[in-house]
Amino acid sequence: MWQELDIQQGDKRSLARAITLVENEYPGFEDYLRSLNGQKDIPVIGITGPPGAGKSTLVDQMIRLLVEKGERVAVLCVDPSSPFHRGAILGDRVRMSDWYDHPSVFIRSLATRGHFGGLSQKMIEITELLRSTPVDRILIETVGVGQSEIEIAGLADTTIVVVVPEAGDEIQAMKSGLMEIADIFVVNKSDRPEADKFVKDLHMMMSNGDHPQIPVIKTIANQNEGTLQLYDAIVEHQRSPALSDKKAWLMTEKVWELIQSYKMRTVNKEKIREAVKDQLASGKANIYAVVDEFKAL
Amino acid sequence: MWQELDIQQGDKRSLARAITLVENEYPGFEDYLRSLNGQKDIPVIGITGPPGAGKSTLVDQMIRLLVEKGERVAVLCVDPSSPFHRGAILGDRVRMSDWYDHPSVFIRSLATRGHFGGLSQKMIEITELLRSTPVDRILIETVGVGQSEIEIAGLADTTIVVVVPEAGDEIQAMKSGLMEIADIFVVNKSDRPEADKFVKDLHMMMSNGDHPQIPVIKTIANQNEGTLQLYDAIVEHQRSPALSDKKAWLMTEKVWELIQSYKMRTVNKEKIREAVKDQLASGKANIYAVVDEFKAL
Repeated sequence: MWQELDIQQGDKRSLARAITLVENEYPGFEDYLRSLNGQKDIPVIGITGPPGAGKSTLVDQMIRLLVEKGERVAVLCVDPSSPFHRGAILGDRVRMSDWYDHPSVFIRSLATRGHFGGLSQKMIEITELLRSTPVDRILIETVGVGQSEIEIAGLADTTIVVVVPEAGDEIQAMKSGLMEIADIFVVNKSDRPEADKFVKDLHMMMSNGDHPQIPVIKTIANQNEGTLQLYDAIVEHQRSPALSDKKAWLMTEKVWELIQSYKMRTVNKEKIREAVKDQLASGKANIYAVVDEFKAL
Repeated sequence: MWQELDIQQGDKRSLARAITLVENEYPGFEDYLRSLNGQKDIPVIGITGPPGAGKSTLVDQMIRLLVEKGERVAVLCVDPSSPFHRGAILGDRVRMSDWYDHPSVFIRSLATRGHFGGLSQKMIEITELLRSTPVDRILIETVGVGQSEIEIAGLADTTIVVVVPEAGDEIQAMKSGLMEIADIFVVNKSDRPEADKFVKDLHMMMSNGDHPQIPVIKTIANQNEGTLQLYDAIVEHQRSPALSDKKAWLMTEKVWELIQSYKMRTVNKEKIREAVKDQLASGKANIYAVVDEFKAL
């Protein structure tokens, strides 16, 4: 099964199949991942931001630009918004469908949590898989705000946070979370009248001394404006001296995640469920009694 | 230190101190949590939904109603939007400041990740702590969308999802994630012209057979409209026969989280960091080599 997969030569069908097998934790998937051993230092670009910011349109334009520059691009679209669904919600991803059949582009949606591990584990594994294929750049788009940024920040060398010009207290609060993970800010839909004020505010928020100067790029993704400037900012970030520290941090976080998922394999959730039912049936609800029963396994 | 904390008698200052000690994983905090052993079956109500939906105003009105009914209320405000900050972003939480000094109300913000574990572990532990105090109801508000719902859905007996009447593809996609965790839907700001159509759409989305009929409550939180109807819906959900299954599921998830954090204590992140640096310095970037070195610890 595994030996037929010719992903290191760039066979897209093999790659798609390999991802499915890893996603579903087909027996031997970890040995397979280990065996690849060809993980090259391919730039991983993360694109995140709140809903409706135009991330997918921007990714679409980025693919176009990279393909025009002769690059081979792998795109991973991660949708953590539906925790209990198996399978990705496509939503506005169809916009990128122009590229599905292009020979230089590989696109994959991901929302599956593995049986053993969570979505971040799968993101790490599939990114490692992609790094073993002949691509020049990996783009990872995540929908959503909240903890999903930790996941993308834990994966991408360069994290792009896409926002649109708007106000609101909670958006402000969220931005300070986004600010901590952003290597580049994109203000999309920047033809809106309030855009300039917004960009100014953004610069002001970031000039409190704690943060290094983060570039702010204005784009109008659906008119393909600003894409080139964004590309230049990415290239510059990829060259920055701080990147090697970030890569070490990233890899540490990934190792941590993978160890965690490995350690939990010996814990049988079904048995916990039984113990919990017994605990509840006995009229008690002492969570630590059940934890203590299983923690040594 | 710990023995001075008189939380089971309802001393608010002791409770605040106990939470701080647990939050910061002061030595002995787990034994302390075990020793409480007085976890009562107190209803835990989760309030979540996208930014700007008016969750805090709604929580404010809920506190008012519960206090008028003579209940003692504990409120936990969780802000996962800033993964790297220590300490909660207050933001619009100040709206609830009326209640900070009320004898029947205990309010606490939480955004700290423990040294050992993550935010969900801390949420579980602090909820267990609150359940050991003489309160009648626990409200947990989480800002944000994305994975934070898993956390609130993994904590609350009754999960209220607050949305506002608006459209957009991505919001739609997200709603289907929210739908899976909602026990009650609140359409806030329902005096907006498009509210009725929105409520109708919501009912239609939910009538695909997969979901049980989820109540939809229209509110205008800043005019205190709909709060009583929401209260009734909560009480009804708390009486529903399906709740005991959900409680067993919840407790299983909590046990899983706590075991995970326990197992990872033996893994030294600093040592991983060193190994990663060596790996990167050697020109390789084989993540599995580092994983294999540490996973057996």
